[in-house]
Amino acid sequence: MSEPYPSGPRIADLGFARLDLQRVERTGDPEVVYGAGKTPDQVVAALVALHRAHPDRAILATRLSDEALAACREVDAEVDEVARVAVLGHSVRPPLGRVAVVGAGTSDLPVIRECAATVRVFGSSPDVITDVGVAGLHRLLAQRDRIDTADVVVAVAGMEAALPSVLGGLVGAPLIAVPTSVGYGWHLDGLTAWLATLNSCAPGVVTVNVDNGFGAGVAAARIARRIGA
Amino acid sequence: MSEPYPSGPRIADLGFARLDLQRVERTGDPEVVYGAGKTPDQVVAALVALHRAHPDRAILATRLSDEALAACREVDAEVDEVARVAVLGHSVRPPLGRVAVVGAGTSDLPVIRECAATVRVFGSSPDVITDVGVAGLHRLLAQRDRIDTADVVVAVAGMEAALPSVLGGLVGAPLIAVPTSVGYGWHLDGLTAWLATLNSCAPGVVTVNVDNGFGAGVAAARIARRIGA
Amino acid sequence: MSEPYPSGPRIADLGFARLDLQRVERTGDPEVVYGAGKTPDQVVAALVALHRAHPDRAILATRLSDEALAACREVDAEVDEVARVAVLGHSVRPPLGRVAVVGAGTSDLPVIRECAATVRVFGSSPDVITDVGVAGLHRLLAQRDRIDTADVVVAVAGMEAALPSVLGGLVGAPLIAVPTSVGYGWHLDGLTAWLATLNSCAPGVVTVNVDNGFGAGVAAARIARRIGA
Amino acid sequence: MSEPYPSGPRIADLGFARLDLQRVERTGDPEVVYGAGKTPDQVVAALVALHRAHPDRAILATRLSDEALAACREVDAEVDEVARVAVLGHSVRPPLGRVAVVGAGTSDLPVIRECAATVRVFGSSPDVITDVGVAGLHRLLAQRDRIDTADVVVAVAGMEAALPSVLGGLVGAPLIAVPTSVGYGWHLDGLTAWLATLNSCAPGVVTVNVDNGFGAGVAAARIARRIGA
Amino acid sequence: MSEPYPSGPRIADLGFARLDLQRVERTGDPEVVYGAGKTPDQVVAALVALHRAHPDRAILATRLSDEALAACREVDAEVDEVARVAVLGHSVRPPLGRVAVVGAGTSDLPVIRECAATVRVFGSSPDVITDVGVAGLHRLLAQRDRIDTADVVVAVAGMEAALPSVLGGLVGAPLIAVPTSVGYGWHLDGLTAWLATLNSCAPGVVTVNVDNGFGAGVAAARIARRIGA
Amino acid sequence: MSEPYPSGPRIADLGFARLDLQRVERTGDPEVVYGAGKTPDQVVAALVALHRAHPDRAILATRLSDEALAACREVDAEVDEVARVAVLGHSVRPPLGRVAVVGAGTSDLPVIRECAATVRVFGSSPDVITDVGVAGLHRLLAQRDRIDTADVVVAVAGMEAALPSVLGGLVGAPLIAVPTSVGYGWHLDGLTAWLATLNSCAPGVVTVNVDNGFGAGVAAARIARRIGA
Amino acid sequence: MSEPYPSGPRIADLGFARLDLQRVERTGDPEVVYGAGKTPDQVVAALVALHRAHPDRAILATRLSDEALAACREVDAEVDEVARVAVLGHSVRPPLGRVAVVGAGTSDLPVIRECAATVRVFGSSPDVITDVGVAGLHRLLAQRDRIDTADVVVAVAGMEAALPSVLGGLVGAPLIAVPTSVGYGWHLDGLTAWLATLNSCAPGVVTVNVDNGFGAGVAAARIARRIGA
Amino acid sequence: MSEPYPSGPRIADLGFARLDLQRVERTGDPEVVYGAGKTPDQVVAALVALHRAHPDRAILATRLSDEALAACREVDAEVDEVARVAVLGHSVRPPLGRVAVVGAGTSDLPVIRECAATVRVFGSSPDVITDVGVAGLHRLLAQRDRIDTADVVVAVAGMEAALPSVLGGLVGAPLIAVPTSVGYGWHLDGLTAWLATLNSCAPGVVTVNVDNGFGAGVAAARIARRIGA
Repeated sequence: MSEPYPSGPRIADLGFARLDLQRVERTGDPEVVYGAGKTPDQVVAALVALHRAHPDRAILATRLSDEALAACREVDAEVDEVARVAVLGHSVRPPLGRVAVVGAGTSDLPVIRECAATVRVFGSSPDVITDVGVAGLHRLLAQRDRIDTADVVVAVAGMEAALPSVLGGLVGAPLIAVPTSVGYGWHLDGLTAWLATLNSCAPGVVTVNVDNGFGAGVAAARIARRIGA
Repeated sequence: MSEPYPSGPRIADLGFARLDLQRVERTGDPEVVYGAGKTPDQVVAALVALHRAHPDRAILATRLSDEALAACREVDAEVDEVARVAVLGHSVRPPLGRVAVVGAGTSDLPVIRECAATVRVFGSSPDVITDVGVAGLHRLLAQRDRIDTADVVVAVAGMEAALPSVLGGLVGAPLIAVPTSVGYGWHLDGLTAWLATLNSCAPGVVTVNVDNGFGAGVAAARIARRIGA
Repeated sequence: MSEPYPSGPRIADLGFARLDLQRVERTGDPEVVYGAGKTPDQVVAALVALHRAHPDRAILATRLSDEALAACREVDAEVDEVARVAVLGHSVRPPLGRVAVVGAGTSDLPVIRECAATVRVFGSSPDVITDVGVAGLHRLLAQRDRIDTADVVVAVAGMEAALPSVLGGLVGAPLIAVPTSVGYGWHLDGLTAWLATLNSCAPGVVTVNVDNGFGAGVAAARIARRIGA
Repeated sequence: MSEPYPSGPRIADLGFARLDLQRVERTGDPEVVYGAGKTPDQVVAALVALHRAHPDRAILATRLSDEALAACREVDAEVDEVARVAVLGHSVRPPLGRVAVVGAGTSDLPVIRECAATVRVFGSSPDVITDVGVAGLHRLLAQRDRIDTADVVVAVAGMEAALPSVLGGLVGAPLIAVPTSVGYGWHLDGLTAWLATLNSCAPGVVTVNVDNGFGAGVAAARIARRIGA
Repeated sequence: MSEPYPSGPRIADLGFARLDLQRVERTGDPEVVYGAGKTPDQVVAALVALHRAHPDRAILATRLSDEALAACREVDAEVDEVARVAVLGHSVRPPLGRVAVVGAGTSDLPVIRECAATVRVFGSSPDVITDVGVAGLHRLLAQRDRIDTADVVVAVAGMEAALPSVLGGLVGAPLIAVPTSVGYGWHLDGLTAWLATLNSCAPGVVTVNVDNGFGAGVAAARIARRIGA
Repeated sequence: MSEPYPSGPRIADLGFARLDLQRVERTGDPEVVYGAGKTPDQVVAALVALHRAHPDRAILATRLSDEALAACREVDAEVDEVARVAVLGHSVRPPLGRVAVVGAGTSDLPVIRECAATVRVFGSSPDVITDVGVAGLHRLLAQRDRIDTADVVVAVAGMEAALPSVLGGLVGAPLIAVPTSVGYGWHLDGLTAWLATLNSCAPGVVTVNVDNGFGAGVAAARIARRIGA
Repeated sequence: MSEPYPSGPRIADLGFARLDLQRVERTGDPEVVYGAGKTPDQVVAALVALHRAHPDRAILATRLSDEALAACREVDAEVDEVARVAVLGHSVRPPLGRVAVVGAGTSDLPVIRECAATVRVFGSSPDVITDVGVAGLHRLLAQRDRIDTADVVVAVAGMEAALPSVLGGLVGAPLIAVPTSVGYGWHLDGLTAWLATLNSCAPGVVTVNVDNGFGAGVAAARIARRIGA
Repeated sequence: MSEPYPSGPRIADLGFARLDLQRVERTGDPEVVYGAGKTPDQVVAALVALHRAHPDRAILATRLSDEALAACREVDAEVDEVARVAVLGHSVRPPLGRVAVVGAGTSDLPVIRECAATVRVFGSSPDVITDVGVAGLHRLLAQRDRIDTADVVVAVAGMEAALPSVLGGLVGAPLIAVPTSVGYGWHLDGLTAWLATLNSCAPGVVTVNVDNGFGAGVAAARIARRIGA
């Protein structure tokens, strides 16, 4: 068996975490700091260490508390308070491809923006279209040009999550659904939207976990930048 | 306290069942024979007994086995094999109001027809529109006139059940959703569609149990005949 | 295909939301402000914008926080603190039909009042009857006259939600069940009541999501005003 | 610590099972043969061995296949094909107390009869009242005298299982609910009825597993014969 | 049909609640104040009104907040802070029968005491035995005499709830299981214990909802006082 | 609003179904025949009608019964019995891009082949790699070259579905997970694998429904042919 | 990084499966043939291939159909029809350690025997003790000597699965629980027993999947033979 | 039947708890103080009482609040704030065997340390290896020597919990999986990881409840000290 991993320092040991420095060589993207359960100091330490190891890349931290967002600002990271993410550094490469991030309702905004920020860090251009739920179809149809010309479409929707199915009947671009935990009554913390996206009658819809704008953003950017290359 | 129930024979005791002969006086409609778990003989006996007690009405039996359908035919009941229902006798009153029964996919047909038959027995006129799922919106929009002019709309849909939400944004008539147990992969025997209809982003959508075309038909007819009166 | 939507301004773009101004033309009722997840300022802005677009209508906002209720009062909206709703403006049309809103227990009151307020805004007259649960049948039977003469009955009940079934055996009016998340022990946040209403042995009971007094109110008013017209 | 178990042969080893012969001394009742998963020969062998060890008692076998019922008849056991039980031998003691076994619908009959047979074997008198579901309250109220005078009430009901709650508001006798797996649409194999009985708004309702007429019969008989002693 | 309800004032209307004053005549016990969701003032008002209507009885209020407990103390009700219950007034009748309330672990104490207080108010004598879980069988066996001589046994247990099954193999008295929401890891808020009690291998075990010491107490007292009469 | 749909015949009405002939213009791919719940005659009729409307395309039918497979063979469709699919006609365009379809176990083969067939019909080239589950990592690592050079990777896995996560750490290509209903003990019909893929620790994994090789194939082909264009 | 895998042929490619021939070097035990979903020919082919690669070992096949069991007998494998397993070849090493396989009820026998057969193939000695459920504690306590002296205890139990907890309070040996799908009423296909074993109040109980006697046997043998070495 | 329990004082009655002093004689290990739901005073009282009864042992308390940790420090117990455990006293016996405690992510640390502390108190040596999740396989493979030479391996993992399966294919030592409630989106509080470990494709993996580092530690130590003896 040939040596499965490339040379170079493999791991940065921060005591509380062992950062995977070779991920960029294996997968094309550096590791991301997942903020939930980490102290602000840990978030910043990981962000800075990854930035040092990858000076030509933007490094992303997600699911940040108010305190962690503040701490990131102090090391000059760019912060989005609605999306609860921070970005340290800038990529030297131009973005490739365009990702339409389409949202059904106003309450879906945090997920939409987490997705858009991730698309940017992972090397593509997000185009955000909000509040175009299916209970007022004309709002959606009015945006068809922007949606039709995207390389990838991300559909963010809570409640009964009908948006991905309607979009899936309108366009043939790769389509990623993000179910959200938004609802009026009993929706099982997003299970309803999740089940709906996985049972879409439109063929070829793929999905990520509830509220996982980050995961959808990674997938969308990887597809879009290959198409746009 | 005044005497809560009207006079007349109250119960027909068939040995295996005690038919509620006064239901028609209390609720306006005679009892229905629920065929599941009954032998063909029991179905016919109940159908005939109810017919005798209500000679000016059509009597409905639902969820019938092949054997029960055959037995009903022998007593000259009208039989629908797709809906698995039988009807004995005819109502002397003209139907009131119109119910649009709108179905998303071809596999929803048994539920659609159980609903339509029930609407008829309960005194209104069904108007069946099939295979207009949201993955091809133009099929649905082409039928808008028939839907817009109905007194009540019943939306029958499986999988992610996006149809009721799209309809709920287009019309203001009373709208009853019937989730069905139709799906491609893992849909929890219709739970997905059920959760979707109960979480519709369109206001005022009401729902019945999975595959319960009968229940939706009863509700729709009761509304439509009051509107059409 | 003919042009599916009527003319006139379609959307009011408030930045955080894109209001659907044509909904009243399509469905007969203006859009409603869903307060959950919105700031008090956003609630008021949406309420005022919808009121301006529909000066001859009452505009409803639901699921409001204490702060949002206070903010609504400052723009002279009428506020119900138990129901957590606000209403801005008045309809120029007289109410049509009567909706009996029947509640099983004292803890169901917020849902009952959300429903009653919605019935009023959507153009019908609510008649509220409370604390008539089935463990004391005489309380319910004592109110039979008011229930028998209603155009539509809404049954609000938590725990095992037996009330809709008992009502469904007594009256033939259209009957909408609202399961509530009220219970003594383990009731799965209202799933018990929800499953019970969907499995009612009384034919024709339709249901909405747990605690969704609003949805039941919309459906009930739409039915009642058509019957009462 | 005193010797916790009485003297005498403790176990009858049949190869495929080790019968607990002292159960009657510890709990007052001999062991029962649970037929599911046993061959007809095993059922009969266990029935005969228990009968020999307890010649002054009736021995019960439950959940029997057609083959096992036939095999039981050949050793002169009394067989109930609807309940799927067999009884070998007779008790020398007179029954004590009376148990009202009240059933909501005709489909609940197998569970009702399993319960009644168990009540008899465990030393009390069953009084069976069927088809008195809450959608026709007068059917139930017509039987109030028989129910009011029972020592224990067992309420057997499927679908939304409203019957135990209505009964619990009418009588003060010990009340055992048996949810059944009978339903029209999606009821989760009886979970709906089960959740309903456990969330009854009537205080003091206790419950057993879905379709477990046997368990309810054991509990009811043990209570009734102590009250009737 | 004879008049189903006795004479006398039927309902005390407190504005926020309609108390059922005839329940004592129908079921032998007065209504109980369920504290969850009520303000301290409402709890006290209901307690006092029921006490006035039933001066020869003890009136129970359950699931009380700290504030409600304090308010009850001010009207001279007896308060149990662990059980979170209050009792106003005293029964003029002597208690009948004895109920062994057996608990598996120290964390089950609130449920055990809610049950014991209820048994007392409903007219029987509780005998509390705690911390006798099955992981140390000798602790349980050391209490067998007290358990064997009780008229009714209540078994309170969380985690895997093995206690009711072990008790069910030792005694023949009526046995009521109360699953509790006590556990180490993932136990689904008591679902584990609940499923376990409903699937007990010991015949005749009946159960109530999770943590419902009140319901078990009502049932146990009703049985015990009939046996002890 | 501009006219949202292209010209040409829109619908082929077969009586039992209304085929959407414009889907190819909107989404780039013709409709597919979903065989479940259709008779062999209906499958063939739909296949032939779609083939006539799109003579330069391959038309796919999935989830076919033995009878339907046989009927498809008679109209000269190409049949895969393991995948239970049939393909009628050939595409005149060369395939674009390459999709690695990687399967964990031998029991996943039907899903793997449904996916591969779909990839081919939807215009890309599948490269199937089987039986490389994570319990023998060297089997997987031995295939790394084929996986590394694919445009899209589909990972098919049942049981605990660890394969997508391991792959997600090795490659940066778009990665679609297909959970399967393969398992040893209690796996909830594939829920385990489904939850696992949606919770993958590798960023950017997207998923489809359980056993939905078709859906994954559509998505993979749409991505791959855009990358390979 | 050192070369992670030993030398020698790694994989036997049978067309339908790629056998992992190095597993024995990595884990000490050869691969096992999982029969579910394999044809009799495939089972035999895999069994024979593994036997050839490991002539000094016994090779196990599990979950076999009647046809597969018959096919295994023809190649002189030893077959257990209750356990549905076959064993080809014999180990040249003596068994090490002793595993007590303790079962609660007669219906648990297939799981008990699958476990015992696996223990033997994986190099230890099983000691089977059946029908010692907790509803008759004396049956269990009568076997304490055999249980106390075992190196590992496997507790097989369905229904509420109280046996592992009772055993866990009696012995200190490593204790593996196997929940089974045996039950009287609604037990969710063994979920009840599964949840119970995972919530055992006895510390240190570990568990495997429902009915997975094989998994428990592998774990028990690996522990026992290390202790007995 | 011989006397099942040894002589000596059996129980220490602390009022709020009845400590099982003979557990050490029956199982080899003294009782542990489970801190959840206990006041700091109760924790300390139980810890001190057990220490007095077992002066030659270390006594463990788990799941401690900040206040309880502080109270334990005042009686000179050793405290681990991440694991939330305290240990009072020291064992006079040397540790036997070695347990590798392997963790997938940084968020799993509290569970890892609870496990390690338990291993130590129960008489073996823990070897902690952290942050070696499967999305960067080289991190795991770099630690293979330490893992290969352990007597027992504990694998702690959240999200999709692929680590135990990968480890199970690499080593043959007894392997205990601890699923954790760590995740990005919707993971059902650890159900995903739990289901994954119970469905591992690697044979012989056993598991404990979600986040139950204590239970895994007890089991691992009991196995390791027997192997190391």
